[in-house]
Amino acid sequence: MIHDTIAAISTAVGEGGIAIIRISGPDAISGTARIFQSKTSLNEAQSHTVNYGHIIDPTTGEQVEEVLVTVMRGPRSFTAEDVVEINAHGGVVAVKQVLDVVLQQEGFRTAEPGEFTKRAFLNGRIDLMQAEAVIDLIRSKSDRAFSVARKQAEGALSKQIKALRQTVIELLAHIEVNIDYPEHDVEDLTSAYIREQCGSAIEAIGKLLKTANEGKILREGILTAIVGRPNVGKSSLMNVLTQENKAIVTDIPGTTRDVIEQFVTLNGIPLRLLDTAGIRDTEDVVEKIGVERSRSALAEAELILLVLNYNEPLQPGDRELLEQLAGRSVIVILNKTDLPHQLEIEVVEQFVPADSIVRMSMLEERGLDRLEQAISDMFFEGQLESNDLTYVSNVRHISLLKRANQSLVDAIEASNMGIPIDVIQIDVRSAWESLGEILGDEVGDSLIDQIFSQFCLGK
Amino acid sequence: MIHDTIAAISTAVGEGGIAIIRISGPDAISGTARIFQSKTSLNEAQSHTVNYGHIIDPTTGEQVEEVLVTVMRGPRSFTAEDVVEINAHGGVVAVKQVLDVVLQQEGFRTAEPGEFTKRAFLNGRIDLMQAEAVIDLIRSKSDRAFSVARKQAEGALSKQIKALRQTVIELLAHIEVNIDYPEHDVEDLTSAYIREQCGSAIEAIGKLLKTANEGKILREGILTAIVGRPNVGKSSLMNVLTQENKAIVTDIPGTTRDVIEQFVTLNGIPLRLLDTAGIRDTEDVVEKIGVERSRSALAEAELILLVLNYNEPLQPGDRELLEQLAGRSVIVILNKTDLPHQLEIEVVEQFVPADSIVRMSMLEERGLDRLEQAISDMFFEGQLESNDLTYVSNVRHISLLKRANQSLVDAIEASNMGIPIDVIQIDVRSAWESLGEILGDEVGDSLIDQIFSQFCLGK
Repeated sequence: MIHDTIAAISTAVGEGGIAIIRISGPDAISGTARIFQSKTSLNEAQSHTVNYGHIIDPTTGEQVEEVLVTVMRGPRSFTAEDVVEINAHGGVVAVKQVLDVVLQQEGFRTAEPGEFTKRAFLNGRIDLMQAEAVIDLIRSKSDRAFSVARKQAEGALSKQIKALRQTVIELLAHIEVNIDYPEHDVEDLTSAYIREQCGSAIEAIGKLLKTANEGKILREGILTAIVGRPNVGKSSLMNVLTQENKAIVTDIPGTTRDVIEQFVTLNGIPLRLLDTAGIRDTEDVVEKIGVERSRSALAEAELILLVLNYNEPLQPGDRELLEQLAGRSVIVILNKTDLPHQLEIEVVEQFVPADSIVRMSMLEERGLDRLEQAISDMFFEGQLESNDLTYVSNVRHISLLKRANQSLVDAIEASNMGIPIDVIQIDVRSAWESLGEILGDEVGDSLIDQIFSQFCLGK
Repeated sequence: MIHDTIAAISTAVGEGGIAIIRISGPDAISGTARIFQSKTSLNEAQSHTVNYGHIIDPTTGEQVEEVLVTVMRGPRSFTAEDVVEINAHGGVVAVKQVLDVVLQQEGFRTAEPGEFTKRAFLNGRIDLMQAEAVIDLIRSKSDRAFSVARKQAEGALSKQIKALRQTVIELLAHIEVNIDYPEHDVEDLTSAYIREQCGSAIEAIGKLLKTANEGKILREGILTAIVGRPNVGKSSLMNVLTQENKAIVTDIPGTTRDVIEQFVTLNGIPLRLLDTAGIRDTEDVVEKIGVERSRSALAEAELILLVLNYNEPLQPGDRELLEQLAGRSVIVILNKTDLPHQLEIEVVEQFVPADSIVRMSMLEERGLDRLEQAISDMFFEGQLESNDLTYVSNVRHISLLKRANQSLVDAIEASNMGIPIDVIQIDVRSAWESLGEILGDEVGDSLIDQIFSQFCLGK
């Protein structure tokens, strides 16, 4: 049972038309009622109504802000508790002043990041897998990643995991009956049943894990570096890719890496473009630091787009880059196809397979479709289209699925080797627990804290 | 009569727990109802209720997002029209997808910046002065500036302007009767009445204009530069000022100036601190550009805080700065009062008045109260405290008040000179019109467009 009431600003920080302070907990309504001046008391407000009035500072009696207050009584709310949302003018100071007054109320405290979603989980409204999808929803940078996260948030993936658990629990029940009443044992039958149930679970897990790679890419994007000698068209490529995406392009602020990333989608394929503008001919000291940073960023890239000038023969610098990039996931872009061809493709093909070479003209914006196809071939085996958006994309889920899978494989092997059934039971139980952990059954507090700490404030 | 329905994201852009799309206009409810899947139709929803459901893409029938939809029927709404607010998960992609579907509805279009507030004005819910305060509310960077804006938004200042207009219109009516029925004219009486009414209006305008300087400072902050030789404590001062204000400190992105500003409040006094870190001993080329920029920023500063080291005698560099800053609003900070005194104050007093010299110790964080008092003396005649928060702070209002004032002065003069009453009438009418323009009476479309274009999107 949760006793305290939490509050936080739930809209993004900055100048906006509206800002919302969300409050959840047993005192949410009565506490807000004390600082809310309006025609009727908030305590009597019906659930899911919007009430006009003023937030007042109870110590001075002065009006702090003109607001709309929404009341949502539990369990019909995001957290399944009583929730109040105060809708204020979207200025930084405005919302801070209201929050200050709110937090002075008895039993109120500032919400930790993700604490509203955590409460929705702790109160049993959603499982852990759904809760984790909520942060993916917010963070998603492409339409497809968003759809995947939404599906997961609504429980599509949870449903599959639950079905898997059902298969495993049936087997477990059968085994336990077998152990408790060995006189009824029909060993061969049990052995066959183990193979059947484990086999079917393994198959289902396999299908889910097959989506993991794509799921992870959809969720996080492919870390992509654009390289090439000066003036071959690197910046133009960057421009073409980002211009196409004006609405979605997002600057990801340099983290520890100090390299700027731009998130773009190329017909649904999400790319995190590293700004490797630094890798160029420079004598400038400051820029040299940039070059170093770019080089280390390059080392981390999952996809490298090497731009060559189709209008001149292969230069020593080009060859050097081709050699350096051996063994990496490289797509070679032959740019300036609008000009006469001078480059011998055969030489390039000594370094990269023919289907990783793409002809483009940045000037005429041609060849983007071919680039898209080449990336799709490399990362999605040519098929990004899937109507079923239930991807496994979360590293935690992937590792737990793998662990469950291993336990089931162990169980079958043990059974084949004639190992006693109470030993096999341990493996099956372990598979059941791993699957349960995905949904948040009996996971430790520290894991839960860690998961929700990744959230933003106010969610 | 407004025929189209407008929609925009009304929360600040970024990752947040909640994002809101606001829709206003005649089709707001019926248009949203077409893309909203829930237990009951939005068309039948009562005003000021929150409704749970899904936004669906009508072309595919697919669910786009899980949302809460608030219905507020006009005139009980922000715009006085039917308003719908869609409350979605606060991710960039999530909210964009919902907005895309919304904007496909017939009669819907993207709202221009400030258009919701503009409609509130055009529909007569608020006057222009109140509307202008809405943007100040959002932009305000200090508690006091926010309170001033809120007062104005709620119409406190409008009320005073309306009272002024009442005085002027009474006079105007009297004059017009006089012109129409000259046979009833008692010239002396009219002349006395003109002096009386104009005099009282002039007095009221004078009171308002007296608040203008402080109002403008409260609204915009005092543009402040910190200068001094290396290692006297400039950065420490900057730190002390900004650390005290952790919650409110806002980086103002470099505009054309390319100089970073930080907004801090020193016990209610808003300062826009220019980052003049550039002014230092540097041979670095890049930094030299910074130095140049800082110097030009310095030229614009309204307040200069010159830091000297109390622990060493006045250096030639100090003297140079003192000479350069003659005639500017300078406060000299004698730093390092925790160390033995070496500086002769008498020398400094040759350049600045004694009450503009403040002893501080950044190390011990001492003397901030003295600095605050010195700034307050310089800009607010020692009195920032005022219970009446009706400041005139908007340049447009100030200039119209001055114009009205001048017209009234002209009227009195004309009357004293025995100029015919129908000529005086022109002045009085002009004063009446200037005051009306403040409230938005009969102002041109282009002015209205210009005012609201300063707003952020979604307000």
